[in-house]
Amino acid sequence: MSKEKKLVESITSRTDDFAQWYTDVVREAKLCDYSDIKGCLNYLPNGYAIWENIQNDLDKRFKKTGVKNVYLPVLIPESLLQKEKDHIEGFAPEVAWVTHGGLEKLEERFCIRPTSETLFCDYWQKIVKSYRDLPIVWNQWNNVLRWEKTTRPFLRSREFLWQEGHTIHATADEARERTKMMFDVYRDFVEEDLAIPLICGRKTDSEKFAGAEDTYTIEAMMFDGKALQSGTSHYFGHSFPDAFNIKYLDSNNNLHSVYETSWGMSTRIIGAIIMVHGDDSGLILPPRIAPIQTKVIPIAQHKEGVLEKANELVQKLNDFGIKVEIDDSEKSPGFKFAEQEVLGIPTRIEIGPRDIENNQVVVVRRDNGEKITVGFDEVDSKLEEILNSIQHDMYNKAKEFLNNHIYCAKTIDEMINISNEKIGFIKASWCGSPDCEDEIKDKTHGFGSRCIDEGDKASGKCVNCGKDAKHVVYWGKSY
Amino acid sequence: MSKEKKLVESITSRTDDFAQWYTDVVREAKLCDYSDIKGCLNYLPNGYAIWENIQNDLDKRFKKTGVKNVYLPVLIPESLLQKEKDHIEGFAPEVAWVTHGGLEKLEERFCIRPTSETLFCDYWQKIVKSYRDLPIVWNQWNNVLRWEKTTRPFLRSREFLWQEGHTIHATADEARERTKMMFDVYRDFVEEDLAIPLICGRKTDSEKFAGAEDTYTIEAMMFDGKALQSGTSHYFGHSFPDAFNIKYLDSNNNLHSVYETSWGMSTRIIGAIIMVHGDDSGLILPPRIAPIQTKVIPIAQHKEGVLEKANELVQKLNDFGIKVEIDDSEKSPGFKFAEQEVLGIPTRIEIGPRDIENNQVVVVRRDNGEKITVGFDEVDSKLEEILNSIQHDMYNKAKEFLNNHIYCAKTIDEMINISNEKIGFIKASWCGSPDCEDEIKDKTHGFGSRCIDEGDKASGKCVNCGKDAKHVVYWGKSY
Repeated sequence: MSKEKKLVESITSRTDDFAQWYTDVVREAKLCDYSDIKGCLNYLPNGYAIWENIQNDLDKRFKKTGVKNVYLPVLIPESLLQKEKDHIEGFAPEVAWVTHGGLEKLEERFCIRPTSETLFCDYWQKIVKSYRDLPIVWNQWNNVLRWEKTTRPFLRSREFLWQEGHTIHATADEARERTKMMFDVYRDFVEEDLAIPLICGRKTDSEKFAGAEDTYTIEAMMFDGKALQSGTSHYFGHSFPDAFNIKYLDSNNNLHSVYETSWGMSTRIIGAIIMVHGDDSGLILPPRIAPIQTKVIPIAQHKEGVLEKANELVQKLNDFGIKVEIDDSEKSPGFKFAEQEVLGIPTRIEIGPRDIENNQVVVVRRDNGEKITVGFDEVDSKLEEILNSIQHDMYNKAKEFLNNHIYCAKTIDEMINISNEKIGFIKASWCGSPDCEDEIKDKTHGFGSRCIDEGDKASGKCVNCGKDAKHVVYWGKSY
Repeated sequence: MSKEKKLVESITSRTDDFAQWYTDVVREAKLCDYSDIKGCLNYLPNGYAIWENIQNDLDKRFKKTGVKNVYLPVLIPESLLQKEKDHIEGFAPEVAWVTHGGLEKLEERFCIRPTSETLFCDYWQKIVKSYRDLPIVWNQWNNVLRWEKTTRPFLRSREFLWQEGHTIHATADEARERTKMMFDVYRDFVEEDLAIPLICGRKTDSEKFAGAEDTYTIEAMMFDGKALQSGTSHYFGHSFPDAFNIKYLDSNNNLHSVYETSWGMSTRIIGAIIMVHGDDSGLILPPRIAPIQTKVIPIAQHKEGVLEKANELVQKLNDFGIKVEIDDSEKSPGFKFAEQEVLGIPTRIEIGPRDIENNQVVVVRRDNGEKITVGFDEVDSKLEEILNSIQHDMYNKAKEFLNNHIYCAKTIDEMINISNEKIGFIKASWCGSPDCEDEIKDKTHGFGSRCIDEGDKASGKCVNCGKDAKHVVYWGKSY
């Protein structure tokens, strides 16, 4: 019993200290761990398995839209990184430099890629000749490095894993359509598979990606009311293509610049899963992304027939396509329950001598603790229903939380009051000036612009200066 | 017609110049391309899709044996790389060094991982306490960098993609079993999925991995008779664990060292697929690993009903689970045929007005050019049979080639004669001395030891010195 207690007590309460709760959950669920290399993570089996599922699901969605996967080098020559002015300004302070290869000093330094726009553009400049070569719609799953000062597991680390999609097109319309299409892919994936509701929209000029004309973002609200930017899709227009001189001949032999996009989602999203769904007992994984969807825990497993029946159950669920594991170790059932809870496995199935007598099992939902008695013969289809309900309920619960923590403000005083008293986002109109944007953030102690709500036409006045508003913006603190 | 001709003529004949043939196929099939970073490759969609299939298939085989995937950092501190003496000697001359992070010079240099034994051991030293923590059976899919002087697409490049498995165990027996198990996984995968027959065995001491007690290798024979080392599995015993002080307490509270293994397969294996199966028209992909298994090519596609029926065919095959694409572009059928051949797509299906009249299609096999008329209604199951036959026939053809190019030698003169006159491997007995091994390689102008045939007990005399033989060894030139 002492060990069981320890397992639960070692997680700080979410409401006492959310940051500590997060660290505790990451550690106790064995998702990742700091390595000896400052700011770099060891992704452990439990955490990496979530990333593998994210990769699989997202990659299928990409391929349905015609994306082809490629892999370009991890190193970028310094001269290449410098070709696009805004880009080098944005990234130069935070890249790692390779200066020696083997025993020799290099003639030119290489940086480890912080992102690969420059490499893609450099290659396209060589291979794109005519309109027949367009569009090019490529993506890579890879590691990138940014020399961050302060780091936190999944949320900000020097090395992280992600996908970066890069595309070029003959027309601006087609490129803009691709930018929006990938933004939609991200939104659908996060809402449907991760059960995380979002606010979505365009970034203001001061918040967009270095070198982009437009950046679209999906933003999730964490349990502490702060936003986590969870995926971005950029429209570059001609900025990189002109810097890299990527031109194509149209069918009339006229030369044109191409239009470019890029879009990315990273291991950061695992942080969102933790902070949106977790509770004081640990992680809660949405069934669609959970590496294990149910844990079978035999009760009184030393008694005759229990382990046999439990293994029959595992086989039955496995055949049905449910991701199932059994814990038949010598630990006590109570310890196993606590462990399943910490790990966020969406359900556990308890099966003991009395259940076997009654030809039934007990399914326990991780999200709400509900115990459901299910006949053994129909356990596979019933469990599938339960997993679907959990997925659905987790989304709705998070959606309710999000809706309950979005406030509207007409004046800056209202905004300041809300920012002092509440957690969450504030919806308020804005004139479009970067100065007002900065002042709002200052006056509210950190409520920056998260995104422009493009579905909501501004009609009133800017919350800060009182001039005519151009946009309705979501404001919030962020990770 | 000029363009079609060009497509085929641009590939040098295999027998005229095999090295040039290889380069031509890689280029024409658009598998990869050199990047601006010397010795680093851009993996293009056609090449990367093969790698994705290799990853999927191999990863499933790993997971069936209990492997868990993880991800450890791309950077290794210099002090860590130096902990195991043989290891640093082997790798120091060929790593790239990071000396600056952002705008600051680092206190200690990091290398970009050439392989990750040191990182895994460093982490295990921290987390392994008792026998309950063992075994640990981890793997990662990642990029590594080795600062090679001369490079060739897939076969040798500075950066390459691979998987590296790392495991530790409480007993030597268990670790040795894991070493052999992964060696078997590689062999089965390459023979069954890539249709490549192998010679398999243990490396001699001078050929084994730096720091290993034993290295097991699978070696394939290329069309020029040279060997390509295609996957290795290492047993380390205590070498790394002792250097990193990884100890565990057994159930009686006694402290012991752990036993370690590692095993890897890389994008190099794509080179083997090309050089074992390809012909003068280009690549030939085994159906089980081919990203596209059949290309539908409509004939006289402007005629009424042709495209509709061709698309119906695509749908039908797709529903059946066959990886199918259609080429309904404006190119001529002849050009499309040549393209399908260069890309190595295992079959094409020709469907024109006359075929539609007769409710049939024509399937053309890439491996032998055979044309098979198949009724439209049964095309899905018939095509599956044809793909299975191709897989089977490709293996048998390569197996026959391998068997026909293995020679036995009893004396060094015989060996020298064979090495002068033939391509392939030579099987010959060896006393076990490294000096004899070196002399044999010198005298035969490059026939090094590929592996010890552990199924064949040595009885005679060493082919070089005439002393009692310890092993029967496969000798050959290699990539």
